[in-house]
Amino acid sequence: MENIFTDDFFMKKALQEAEMAFEKGEIPVGAVVVVNNTVIARSHNLTEMLNDVTAHAEMQSITAAANYLGGKYLKDCTLYVTLEPCQMCAGALYWSQITKIVFGASDEQRGFMTMGTKLHPKTTVVSGVMADEAAELMKRFFASRRK
Amino acid sequence: MENIFTDDFFMKKALQEAEMAFEKGEIPVGAVVVVNNTVIARSHNLTEMLNDVTAHAEMQSITAAANYLGGKYLKDCTLYVTLEPCQMCAGALYWSQITKIVFGASDEQRGFMTMGTKLHPKTTVVSGVMADEAAELMKRFFASRRK
Repeated sequence: MENIFTDDFFMKKALQEAEMAFEKGEIPVGAVVVVNNTVIARSHNLTEMLNDVTAHAEMQSITAAANYLGGKYLKDCTLYVTLEPCQMCAGALYWSQITKIVFGASDEQRGFMTMGTKLHPKTTVVSGVMADEAAELMKRFFASRRK
Repeated sequence: MENIFTDDFFMKKALQEAEMAFEKGEIPVGAVVVVNNTVIARSHNLTEMLNDVTAHAEMQSITAAANYLGGKYLKDCTLYVTLEPCQMCAGALYWSQITKIVFGASDEQRGFMTMGTKLHPKTTVVSGVMADEAAELMKRFFASRRK
């Protein structure tokens, strides 16, 4: 039987969150946290609406997932996020000891890989999942803002 | 006339916050945000109580200060924090474009300086303000936990 719970399957849910951010005039980044093929947290960037630089999609999902699990460590969890996490979010993921991070588009300017932010040794990273879709959404957002 | 609004003056307030964290069984780190010699935000570490790795003193103070100011950039603000910020908090401070960071004790293991986290070019940093008091509080906390 085919496994429907692929990285693409969950990244599509993160992309749906990013679309919601887009509709609110927020930089379109979305995230979900998955454990045992179940989504336990979903969020999108709300920095403008909340007037808060810490309201990135990842930060909200980390908080929500820990709340769901009743503990602050995201053991056996995978974060799907449409854009490469920044220093702040990677720093939060470091503390969370999350098992896996799957991101879509790279952020060559401010992504944690360029910035050299360290993740927890327990954490594995997969990049480039539905990257074109995530990058296209970002391009469309910034094009609409320039009008 | 003597200026009472020294770095020590505000760091004492951050240390009071750290003491509150200590009393709650939290790693004792406290922070305040100051603009024009007025404290506009104060907070202490609540990661245990909130079950949330993102609930560092600095993160809460950044959110509270932005809320007070009605904008997400911490222009003309100084953050006083008893311990050197971690990657996550330094990453949040990067986004906030805060004017100045004053910290007490260094964190040679997980502080942003060792980790190489980048701050905003607008931000200046002062370190070592009441560092002994902050370090002593941390030592006292970890000694009490080992008992």
